[in-house]
Amino acid sequence: MPQMFDIQPLSRALAPALQAKIDQKTKPLGALGQLEALALQIGLIQNSLTPSLTKPCIFVFAGDHGVAGSGVSAYPQAVTAQMVANFAAGGAAINVFARQHQIDLLIVDAGVNADLTAIPGLIDAGIGKGTANFLDQPAMTREQCAIALAKGAELVLRQRDQGCNCIGFGEMGIGNTSSAALIMHCLTGLPLEACVGRGTGLDDAQLQHKVSILQQALTRHPGLSDPSEILATFGGFEIAMMVGAYLKAAELNMLIMVDGFIAGSALLAAAGLHPAVLDYCVFSHMSGEQGHRSLLDHLHARPLLNLDMRLGEGSGIALAYPLLLSAVVFLNEMATFDEAGVDRD
Amino acid sequence: MPQMFDIQPLSRALAPALQAKIDQKTKPLGALGQLEALALQIGLIQNSLTPSLTKPCIFVFAGDHGVAGSGVSAYPQAVTAQMVANFAAGGAAINVFARQHQIDLLIVDAGVNADLTAIPGLIDAGIGKGTANFLDQPAMTREQCAIALAKGAELVLRQRDQGCNCIGFGEMGIGNTSSAALIMHCLTGLPLEACVGRGTGLDDAQLQHKVSILQQALTRHPGLSDPSEILATFGGFEIAMMVGAYLKAAELNMLIMVDGFIAGSALLAAAGLHPAVLDYCVFSHMSGEQGHRSLLDHLHARPLLNLDMRLGEGSGIALAYPLLLSAVVFLNEMATFDEAGVDRD
Repeated sequence: MPQMFDIQPLSRALAPALQAKIDQKTKPLGALGQLEALALQIGLIQNSLTPSLTKPCIFVFAGDHGVAGSGVSAYPQAVTAQMVANFAAGGAAINVFARQHQIDLLIVDAGVNADLTAIPGLIDAGIGKGTANFLDQPAMTREQCAIALAKGAELVLRQRDQGCNCIGFGEMGIGNTSSAALIMHCLTGLPLEACVGRGTGLDDAQLQHKVSILQQALTRHPGLSDPSEILATFGGFEIAMMVGAYLKAAELNMLIMVDGFIAGSALLAAAGLHPAVLDYCVFSHMSGEQGHRSLLDHLHARPLLNLDMRLGEGSGIALAYPLLLSAVVFLNEMATFDEAGVDRD
Repeated sequence: MPQMFDIQPLSRALAPALQAKIDQKTKPLGALGQLEALALQIGLIQNSLTPSLTKPCIFVFAGDHGVAGSGVSAYPQAVTAQMVANFAAGGAAINVFARQHQIDLLIVDAGVNADLTAIPGLIDAGIGKGTANFLDQPAMTREQCAIALAKGAELVLRQRDQGCNCIGFGEMGIGNTSSAALIMHCLTGLPLEACVGRGTGLDDAQLQHKVSILQQALTRHPGLSDPSEILATFGGFEIAMMVGAYLKAAELNMLIMVDGFIAGSALLAAAGLHPAVLDYCVFSHMSGEQGHRSLLDHLHARPLLNLDMRLGEGSGIALAYPLLLSAVVFLNEMATFDEAGVDRD
């Protein structure tokens, strides 16, 4: 799959001009902190001194996981499909936050273990009725994984063609923090225990059980190092679809908004295939899920928000989006020292 | 002055009902993290299960400081008035962020050392042409300080009467991190060095000079412990006006959005007079100014954003405002488990 995507490392040619523009604004040098770094990055991605965010969009990829039957989640697998119906009806957290910020929200069946044909507005990209249980066999075949990447990429291309230049990916899938923890462990080399968290709310004993289940999975599939193989073995359809979506968005020079722990694990896999994807990414938040801090550190990423959220769905992206817009509006709309007649230091 | 304000500690009578409403939303318990605490606080302040933010407003209080002539800032005093003109013309950071979020912005001359009569739209509440230099004498008289509190209170009342229930206070004043550092030192007991930062961008030698100037000020005015006296001795007119504004807003049961370091020092003084003011406060961000972290810790406050900003003007408030709105919209608009037909754990 790696050769499917042609991702260029971000050119820094415009960096001096962008920095000069930022420094001429009526504020002390650097006083807008992380927003200034954001403005620079967005300007570089769009190769423009006057960037803009058009038709922002969040995809929520939903998929089920064979391992969900093994007691790794506080919720039953049926909740994945129930939450997809909730997304379609507009009642979930991501719905209200996306509405608040006028972000287009698209819900994708990446492989939910239920008949969702009656749900209006859902994008059917389902690859199967949930993955296999990785305690028994790889979660998906290499072919299924490749199809998931291609479908994720295709969906992103469609949005770009409709004018979107700023995109983010959320997920829903009971059991998917287990997939994410295994992917993180394999791709970062960090101890498994450091990658496994309480997900939707496990207690201490349940967390210990989850760690032991995931240890069994590693014993069943030892010595993996190829990102594609790790993704196929431990991933979910929604995670694999996110990988393809990230890579296509970077290829298309789009600004990518990264959500929390599961979205981060998908990005690890994407970056394992094409490291330059990271140049296009903004990290929306640090999740309360154990492991996310280490994951972000591994990527040298600084998140915009740190609100102890652990919901997924792209909710961190929606909440951080106005900060991206703030970076753009200060760059475009603030007066310069000369324009405002303000003395410099 | 303390007896001017009648601030009730926040009643927690509605807390169980609010928490139950939050917990019935379609998300794992606690998964919206700090937003859930915000929703609870806003519901308590408004004594409502369906709170709303109406006519949000930011005042920017501007004032000059006698100490500005003593080499404590990277910018000359004239910049205060120049920035007031920039605010009035719509070109400063706070202008673009307030526009982005449709927050009313009101600029107040609290005591700038310039003739600002030609600036359109400015609220004239000037108490003097800048404070006295506290190296020589108290920055203001007790009477001036009382007038500043009363004017701040009066402005807040006017906004409340026009339908505003959510208010924040920013400031502009060359030299005012020096006032803030002294107020913080006197009211927290933390070492002076821990309260003094680089302000708009001092280098190491300039920072050392600032510390030594402020040490001189403490020697000139030893042993102060009364908040009103500390405020009059070391404060600025804009800081004193903020104190009155905080106290009146709490008295009127308004949600108060707290900006950065200088706003925080004003809140320390307000809380020194009426501790219950803190019940009404949301802390928008942690500034990059040294001392702000300790100030927030002293108040047991957890800020919403931490973007290394150090601009003042209320800019942190404007950027954090959409998160307050998100807390309200999730509480009002998200579906419950029963409504959405989603299984609980």
